[in-house]
Amino acid sequence: MVRLNEAFRNLNANYLFAEIRKRTKAFSDANPSAKLINLGIGDVTRPLPPAVVQALHDAVDELARAETFKGYGPYTGYEWLATAIARHDFAPRGITLGADEIFISDGGKSDSANLQELFARDCVVALMDPVYPVYADTNVLAGRTGKADARGHYAGIVYLPCTAANDFQPALPDRPVDVIYLCYPNNPTGAVATRAALTRWVEYARAHETVIIFDAAYEAYIVDADVPHSIYEIEGAREVAVECRSFSKNAGFTGLRLAYTVVPKETRGKFADGSVGSLNALWHRRTASKFQGPPYLIQKAGAAVFTPEGQKEVRALIDYYMANARTIAEGLRAAGYAVHGGRNAPYIWLGAPAGQTSWDFFDALLTKAHVVGVPGSGFGPSGEGYFRLTAFGSREQTAEAVERIRTRL
Amino acid sequence: MVRLNEAFRNLNANYLFAEIRKRTKAFSDANPSAKLINLGIGDVTRPLPPAVVQALHDAVDELARAETFKGYGPYTGYEWLATAIARHDFAPRGITLGADEIFISDGGKSDSANLQELFARDCVVALMDPVYPVYADTNVLAGRTGKADARGHYAGIVYLPCTAANDFQPALPDRPVDVIYLCYPNNPTGAVATRAALTRWVEYARAHETVIIFDAAYEAYIVDADVPHSIYEIEGAREVAVECRSFSKNAGFTGLRLAYTVVPKETRGKFADGSVGSLNALWHRRTASKFQGPPYLIQKAGAAVFTPEGQKEVRALIDYYMANARTIAEGLRAAGYAVHGGRNAPYIWLGAPAGQTSWDFFDALLTKAHVVGVPGSGFGPSGEGYFRLTAFGSREQTAEAVERIRTRL
Repeated sequence: MVRLNEAFRNLNANYLFAEIRKRTKAFSDANPSAKLINLGIGDVTRPLPPAVVQALHDAVDELARAETFKGYGPYTGYEWLATAIARHDFAPRGITLGADEIFISDGGKSDSANLQELFARDCVVALMDPVYPVYADTNVLAGRTGKADARGHYAGIVYLPCTAANDFQPALPDRPVDVIYLCYPNNPTGAVATRAALTRWVEYARAHETVIIFDAAYEAYIVDADVPHSIYEIEGAREVAVECRSFSKNAGFTGLRLAYTVVPKETRGKFADGSVGSLNALWHRRTASKFQGPPYLIQKAGAAVFTPEGQKEVRALIDYYMANARTIAEGLRAAGYAVHGGRNAPYIWLGAPAGQTSWDFFDALLTKAHVVGVPGSGFGPSGEGYFRLTAFGSREQTAEAVERIRTRL
Repeated sequence: MVRLNEAFRNLNANYLFAEIRKRTKAFSDANPSAKLINLGIGDVTRPLPPAVVQALHDAVDELARAETFKGYGPYTGYEWLATAIARHDFAPRGITLGADEIFISDGGKSDSANLQELFARDCVVALMDPVYPVYADTNVLAGRTGKADARGHYAGIVYLPCTAANDFQPALPDRPVDVIYLCYPNNPTGAVATRAALTRWVEYARAHETVIIFDAAYEAYIVDADVPHSIYEIEGAREVAVECRSFSKNAGFTGLRLAYTVVPKETRGKFADGSVGSLNALWHRRTASKFQGPPYLIQKAGAAVFTPEGQKEVRALIDYYMANARTIAEGLRAAGYAVHGGRNAPYIWLGAPAGQTSWDFFDALLTKAHVVGVPGSGFGPSGEGYFRLTAFGSREQTAEAVERIRTRL
């Protein structure tokens, strides 16, 4: 019988969202008249911007005519989109990127899952804790870890706790690591890295020859002036950092699937014999071997985001969601909750009331306020005692949810 | 400095298409008046079927309204598409598949690249030779091989030669293997497996507890009655076979990116301690950890393929391309070439004239007939001395190419 990849046995059965669904369904079945409000899932709810809708219709019409039909595109995406990304997302911040340093993909999830393939199996990975679970899970599947302990720490991963005690800013690793995943603005805590903090990370990475995978999926939500939008705003970052961006949470592409990763020509690693390899060249090779590029019409939709109308419409979407974030943050703060995030990110990170675990609070919120969120412990051991609410609901439901939490708990 | 994945060093620099481009460009630059005809790349050229175009427009309109907007979909694709696939692609052949056995993806390339992640690193892989290069390349990147020898055989892979001497039907492996990749109808040879041949493979796999990855991307081109369209037409295949299908070459989705893989509940493997694992469960887990499903509107386009209009239009596309295949096959056979394939597949596999290598023939075709094809040696060592032409050109260019080859070589 074929031998299976042992690493699957190390992965925790991820019951987070299944458990949420199960408890929610049990409550709904027992209380059919309860009107649940879901502020749990990090998925957008507003329709696509009109500029994007028009670009999609136009692209479909191109594919309907032999003269303008497009089949296979470049593995790493169309150069016109990479050029637009460089011009709009980076040049205004003084960052110069070549189109061949921008790899267009079908989602930030794919990129954060796949980048680890560049590295040796025995590389040591450091993660913020709590954080988006895909970083840990895909390193587990790659065989870089042992099983998780009772608290959920995988053996071999270096966890960097982020709690209220350190203002959700992790300390530098206290032992050698090869790869560090940083997610700023952070999912789930909503924390950001100031220019000083990010400079400290880049300097650490340069001094220790560590690679930083910088996930900036929520970059568009940054409002504070001293928070860099890209790690390449920091001197020397091109030599040590890869940056992931997405069209999901700014332009509402969660169902369209479009993202990109920047791999500068200067990023390097070494092979076992000491010879040096280019991460850009290896990522190009990996992409050409395993991926065929996102659909043409989705890339045209992405380009529409950079038109003047697209930019205005995307800004309106972000403003809409951030008004929700303020409603939640201010409302719950006034109600006495410890509220974090929600300023430069669409996530509100609540401290559960004293003595309650994340799941205790989940149950209280569900049964008393009929509001669904995500227990913080689902994002890592240091998320225990916290709870994530998202700003991606409708205006009305968001206000109603806050009112219920204030009055019923 | 971060240590890199050593396996990248084993992968041959794949100069096939780069070399084709280079030689083609050099010729064009030197002969600007030559009108080149490209029958090389395996990409469709006809526009999308009208039923698909309409479904795309309708889906875009859904995404433009809050009431019908769709964000994240299921990791493994929408159930309505899986159900339509089961009903239209399998039920008419007596095959019953559950929607949870059908995993919808962004392309056959992704599926054939990623399925190997289910297996232990020391599994032995067998490949048809020549064949679609992604199977070998992704096993190289996974660290299952050594470097390639001078002929292009990677150490550790078991090659199953397919040449005119065995009518392009590989012998069963002569040593133990764990995973066998079969591609039928075959890219590049155009060969098919009869019911008897496929039964022999399934019986071998059952007797040796081997897994077959059956790539049926060109299934829609089958015309001969004794050629199964699915490996599940063979008794017992559900226990040993995974099947990959695509919307690319039938419905013209090469630029839309949609495919699926069937992983039956009965397929099994074992972990190091002897415990048994379900390939279906592991593939579900891998998909949930690394992929977010194809775009909603692309899946709606896929569903349109199964409407009565969609089926009629797809049939017309295939008929169009297969008329080209006949033009090439008959024309070149009449001109004295050894012609294979082109009957149940959109690929024509030519024997190069005696004494010529694949690249010799490439150069002759380019410089004398101004026709571009693909040297067979690019698909594997046993492709040396052969040459691939595709049926995916326009009617006029295909006829013109054949005429030029007949009269100028």
